[in-house]
Amino acid sequence: MNYRKPFDAAEYARRLSDVRRRMDASGFDLIVCQDPANMCWLTGFDGWSFYTPQAVLVHRDDDVPIWFGRAQDAKSAHFTTDLPAENIIGYSEPLVHHPVDHPFDELCDLIVRRGWGSARIGIELDAHYYTARAHQHLVRGLPNAALSDNAGLVNWARLVKSEAELVLMREAGQICSRTMNRAVAKIAPGVPQHEVIAEVYHAQITGVNGKHGDYTSLCPLIQVGEGTSTPHLTWTDEPLPNDTLVMMEIAAARRHYHAPLTRTIHLGKPKPDIQKLASVIVEGVDTALDAARPGATCEAVEAVWQKVLNRNGYRKESRVGYSIGLNYPPDWGERTASLRPGDETVLEAGMCFHFQSGVWLDDFGAAVSEPFVVTDRGGERLCDTSRELIVID
Amino acid sequence: MNYRKPFDAAEYARRLSDVRRRMDASGFDLIVCQDPANMCWLTGFDGWSFYTPQAVLVHRDDDVPIWFGRAQDAKSAHFTTDLPAENIIGYSEPLVHHPVDHPFDELCDLIVRRGWGSARIGIELDAHYYTARAHQHLVRGLPNAALSDNAGLVNWARLVKSEAELVLMREAGQICSRTMNRAVAKIAPGVPQHEVIAEVYHAQITGVNGKHGDYTSLCPLIQVGEGTSTPHLTWTDEPLPNDTLVMMEIAAARRHYHAPLTRTIHLGKPKPDIQKLASVIVEGVDTALDAARPGATCEAVEAVWQKVLNRNGYRKESRVGYSIGLNYPPDWGERTASLRPGDETVLEAGMCFHFQSGVWLDDFGAAVSEPFVVTDRGGERLCDTSRELIVID
Repeated sequence: MNYRKPFDAAEYARRLSDVRRRMDASGFDLIVCQDPANMCWLTGFDGWSFYTPQAVLVHRDDDVPIWFGRAQDAKSAHFTTDLPAENIIGYSEPLVHHPVDHPFDELCDLIVRRGWGSARIGIELDAHYYTARAHQHLVRGLPNAALSDNAGLVNWARLVKSEAELVLMREAGQICSRTMNRAVAKIAPGVPQHEVIAEVYHAQITGVNGKHGDYTSLCPLIQVGEGTSTPHLTWTDEPLPNDTLVMMEIAAARRHYHAPLTRTIHLGKPKPDIQKLASVIVEGVDTALDAARPGATCEAVEAVWQKVLNRNGYRKESRVGYSIGLNYPPDWGERTASLRPGDETVLEAGMCFHFQSGVWLDDFGAAVSEPFVVTDRGGERLCDTSRELIVID
Repeated sequence: MNYRKPFDAAEYARRLSDVRRRMDASGFDLIVCQDPANMCWLTGFDGWSFYTPQAVLVHRDDDVPIWFGRAQDAKSAHFTTDLPAENIIGYSEPLVHHPVDHPFDELCDLIVRRGWGSARIGIELDAHYYTARAHQHLVRGLPNAALSDNAGLVNWARLVKSEAELVLMREAGQICSRTMNRAVAKIAPGVPQHEVIAEVYHAQITGVNGKHGDYTSLCPLIQVGEGTSTPHLTWTDEPLPNDTLVMMEIAAARRHYHAPLTRTIHLGKPKPDIQKLASVIVEGVDTALDAARPGATCEAVEAVWQKVLNRNGYRKESRVGYSIGLNYPPDWGERTASLRPGDETVLEAGMCFHFQSGVWLDDFGAAVSEPFVVTDRGGERLCDTSRELIVID
């Protein structure tokens, strides 16, 4: 069976040794990773099975991680990873959604059986699918272990992308540009919102130049009129009106690497206040991307952007960007570095961010965002969709 | 702004009074619901914001729930719910992905401020997005409260669907049937997998008869050849070969109400063992659906199915079905009743299930599943896609 892995064995080995180095520095013998992106990044494991408990285990003394998951899904691990069969452990089916027992009871047995019952274990306390109940079962089943939060240890290891990862990021950018262009081409007064979205989905998956797309970690988002004052509404079947503002935030994913993009479209002639907000945003993004070079801090890049805004009478309360890369639903952010005051992360070449320049005022908003890679020449855009308020008149 | 709610005020009032009755029976003064489906079911709240902490609170003495979430998303709550402004509480933006503080610190403040600091509080210990870290912050911030698992109290309240909900379930079934038919029409040797998936997404959103579709809680799943031996693989760009088995599990969602469906397609003339497995599955489903009447238990329905399988030399280890309805990623199951041994839930008219009849053998599998509503005449199918091994020769 031919599930072509996106990376060679050397890349996975490099990742693993980096993670084991970080584990040593943080004092962990073992980490338990439930975040599907961390599981995939460490082993290649891929499948929509993250709605039941599963994990990848990395021990400081072992060259090879362990995959633990539902028996039914163990075969997906055989197909999508190069892990040896003895490192792929399926748990019993009756544990799925069981009111009393939990799959992690068997995970505890496994950990004890391997002699790690007294280990210093780093868990992902805030991973989306690491529920409070899962944690209780681990705590109860490993009374001699020292369990503590690994504070996104693997998420942080993912921050700087390899050349092979950047190839996928750029391909995602190409698919995303084409998808946004198709969406814009579809937008016109009278077209129901969901017809635009159907077009988006089709373009996301079809891809570009023989490169197909994967599902994205968020669904396509569209806001219309007054709805542009809040960012996470989804579509209805309402026809797009004349003389209205439309905001779309979409992404494309290539082997689960994401390039997200936001554009603002005006149907009819835009009022000066909208035109002004959009052009200030574009100026702010251009200025900030120029500053996004190795050695700059995340907060310094935000400050550059905020200064352009403030000079023009605006202010953005929420962070203006976050790191991106490999991800799974419900979020395409990596939950590590953010472009905001107080984040002193120093930029390095190969880090990728979504510069989410949305500004939401009381009754409308606009965004002209850019996904970018940090390079010596500043932020390199992953998308080439024209950056301006798009007017359809 | 016109976000048409799918239900009238009386329906939400009925739900709330049912939930408050269950709270009294379980000894809770307050419940904190983080499951996006529970949040939507209780208030109508809709938006892809569940990747940051948010919750709906229901107090036994209050007629109106409280929405708590990110400041940026509070406006979505104003648009999509009928909650009064004072019951929509946004938390500070800097708390998003903050390494030390957590949005639930402000939730604790809110709970204390309302005089509920010593309440008996039921939390959703195993909801997908209720992380171990979120729980720690609630425990720390409410030292005088009695916090305990509400064991899916609202999920269980959702089990029997109202007539208005069944309308949406049936519409979802129609969209799903059409989507599966379009997928099957696209399937042929040489067609890359992702082109079939692009078609599926387009059909899911386009909908039927002017009824549009929403995003589904799982992405469309496709398995080919040996891959049919495991259920949760997603697409590649490989062309479909001749003489191969293809399994697809998809759904359609109507206002987030889901009808999932699985079909098995054979390209070329199928071998007798595949033909046999498929027809035993169809017989098993028919027999079990006939038994799915009010008064029967979940485990009794499973036993009927398993008996047909066993008589023919097969066995299905995993549960054969689970309740369905309103849902959000990552799972369209409601995480309550399962059709499996040991589940003594008694069926009532209006409950909906996905009869997931997939049987995965060592080197191939097949599934011809059905979403259905429990009625006095047995399980009423929500989809009308032909139920058989689909042969494309």
